[in-house]
Amino acid sequence: MKATVIVRLKTEVLDVQGDAVRRALGKLGFEGVKGVRVGKIIEIEIDEAHAKAPDLPQRLKKMADEMLANPVIEDYEVLSS
Amino acid sequence: MKATVIVRLKTEVLDVQGDAVRRALGKLGFEGVKGVRVGKIIEIEIDEAHAKAPDLPQRLKKMADEMLANPVIEDYEVLSS
Repeated sequence: MKATVIVRLKTEVLDVQGDAVRRALGKLGFEGVKGVRVGKIIEIEIDEAHAKAPDLPQRLKKMADEMLANPVIEDYEVLSS
Repeated sequence: MKATVIVRLKTEVLDVQGDAVRRALGKLGFEGVKGVRVGKIIEIEIDEAHAKAPDLPQRLKKMADEMLANPVIEDYEVLSS
């Protein structure tokens, strides 16, 4: 199975990459773009045996807390499919 | 309204960042992780006037083709909400 973790900068943190994209889109002639935020999407393939473990949601949360996101400046969201 | 563009490396392209995450998760004791792919999620805030334009889907596709993704090595997906 595949689990997806989406990591975004917290809204109060300035997203310089997103701002650069917004300005570049404007220069390319794309109008109406008010703001752009750039985040990460991390897709994790879990093997069958571990996919059925009842503690999988907690383990995914732990992965995100310890390694995938920087909780000081980033928020994350865990999705499973 | 907000449009979301998800950019992923094509499956045939080696994802060194994803591999590094996979190995690091293993070292941290997370078992059962077969593979990890890291992509980008770009959230674009479109102003009201432009959000209603009938050509918005085409314009978003053009943004992705010309600027947000590198079509040689990346695939993208456009979502609107």
